[in-house]
Amino acid sequence: MQAAEKRAVEARVRVRYAETDQMGIVYHANYLVWMEVGRVEYCRASGFRYKDLEAAGILLAVVEANCRYVSPALYDEEVIVRTTIEEATPRVVRFGYRMLSGEDGRLLAEGFTKHVFCGRDRRATKLPKQYHSVFGVESAPSALGVIAPEPAP
Amino acid sequence: MQAAEKRAVEARVRVRYAETDQMGIVYHANYLVWMEVGRVEYCRASGFRYKDLEAAGILLAVVEANCRYVSPALYDEEVIVRTTIEEATPRVVRFGYRMLSGEDGRLLAEGFTKHVFCGRDRRATKLPKQYHSVFGVESAPSALGVIAPEPAP
Amino acid sequence: MQAAEKRAVEARVRVRYAETDQMGIVYHANYLVWMEVGRVEYCRASGFRYKDLEAAGILLAVVEANCRYVSPALYDEEVIVRTTIEEATPRVVRFGYRMLSGEDGRLLAEGFTKHVFCGRDRRATKLPKQYHSVFGVESAPSALGVIAPEPAP
Amino acid sequence: MQAAEKRAVEARVRVRYAETDQMGIVYHANYLVWMEVGRVEYCRASGFRYKDLEAAGILLAVVEANCRYVSPALYDEEVIVRTTIEEATPRVVRFGYRMLSGEDGRLLAEGFTKHVFCGRDRRATKLPKQYHSVFGVESAPSALGVIAPEPAP
Repeated sequence: MQAAEKRAVEARVRVRYAETDQMGIVYHANYLVWMEVGRVEYCRASGFRYKDLEAAGILLAVVEANCRYVSPALYDEEVIVRTTIEEATPRVVRFGYRMLSGEDGRLLAEGFTKHVFCGRDRRATKLPKQYHSVFGVESAPSALGVIAPEPAP
Repeated sequence: MQAAEKRAVEARVRVRYAETDQMGIVYHANYLVWMEVGRVEYCRASGFRYKDLEAAGILLAVVEANCRYVSPALYDEEVIVRTTIEEATPRVVRFGYRMLSGEDGRLLAEGFTKHVFCGRDRRATKLPKQYHSVFGVESAPSALGVIAPEPAP
Repeated sequence: MQAAEKRAVEARVRVRYAETDQMGIVYHANYLVWMEVGRVEYCRASGFRYKDLEAAGILLAVVEANCRYVSPALYDEEVIVRTTIEEATPRVVRFGYRMLSGEDGRLLAEGFTKHVFCGRDRRATKLPKQYHSVFGVESAPSALGVIAPEPAP
Repeated sequence: MQAAEKRAVEARVRVRYAETDQMGIVYHANYLVWMEVGRVEYCRASGFRYKDLEAAGILLAVVEANCRYVSPALYDEEVIVRTTIEEATPRVVRFGYRMLSGEDGRLLAEGFTKHVFCGRDRRATKLPKQYHSVFGVESAPSALGVIAPEPAP
């Protein structure tokens, strides 16, 4: 997964008035929405659209989300969402995010989301092989020269 | 539809911090969400759940929404959503809403949403007869002893 | 206001997963958020930023919003928000919006928002003259060579 | 803080259509909004309103949020948000949340938010003593009979 770890894809969003709260800053839950924008752009930059994955019956169900807030994003500010893949197996993928101001470069927040691959029935499944390279799924057994019997989905 | 017109169902929501914006008041799009809360409670008070209607393959697709803002709702304020049915035919239903402060009774906003009944394919359909009374669909022609030819769906 | 009426500014948004609902389409209240994106870009294209107007103590309080939904926007679709000013006086401005698919050009929705100019205290005020041209506020009386006494704010 | 740790306050929300996404479940960012509802009710049950704290110039700025998703919440489902205080010092408070279905009791999600007390200028400050008991701030040194020099804010 080395290559994938180095790869970072940038998406840009502009803070909407709707996303602010009466503290005069962006309401904290909205950063999770920007993470979504980030990982969708990560997919697009990797040559496929998340919606096509979903149309093919593979859903990315969120099982954990985490965000640390460093400096509040402000109304109308441009935000850069820098997305990487931190971990990927045929079952699970973990995206990492750094959100930076497009205006002064300061770190706004960082976090991650962890997902399991699911079928249309929302039950956990394994990512089909043709998508492995996109997510940088490790092929550990072959790297070790070991042929591991693959459990059925 | 006289009876239905008189009927008003009240739902209560408390303003969330997430719903405010940096003007220190509720962001205006959120009133449309409260209208949704209002009409779902209208259905529940009428003896059925909107989700059951949807499970039965009848969707209420919004074709128009309107809101006039009178006095801004504030954080943590309780809001009363008073919902009525303003018009109902086998094709279309129009809900009316008055949103009032639960604290001082002032009028916050009023508006309406207009919906067409759709099937799961999101194509317009006619409301099955068993739901007519719920929405107060007029049966004007037969009431007048007139047999009106019913257009095919 | 002729010139202003002809002027249309385009903004583009991409539909977020967060904006969809279980009907598989964009939840209707989100179009009002896109209208906000549209009018902010209208301001930017007119040479000023809405946030600067707000910093100068002039707020655009929404007094009415309306949207007619024609064809549902879908996840990941690009949406073009075409914004115009339909009416502008020193007290009130009304923006009109047409939302189109960036992919097949179909009309998704159209609507308007009406605003009054307010001070920081959220009380109605008059738009200072230096902003009149931006919003295309008519100067009808002077155009007719009539000096109309201006009512105090 | 023993007493505070044991104290759990329950709030109830009903899943709105607006909160679902096209996967047919609640969009994950909305759980953070429910956590907000939870901690506001925690405050109310502790005898004060968060808005009064804010009016007194004490803001609870979120510095971290975490959520683990166990079973998806569904449209119209009632959700119980069980809020506790996991940690509290004069600088920092950490709320814990368990979200359960009000219908079948299954665990939907659990998580925490960590906050620093801030002044109106959004700079970190110390919680005034009169609020210590509310948040269950430990008074460890004095409890031990030790006079600890208090650092200036």
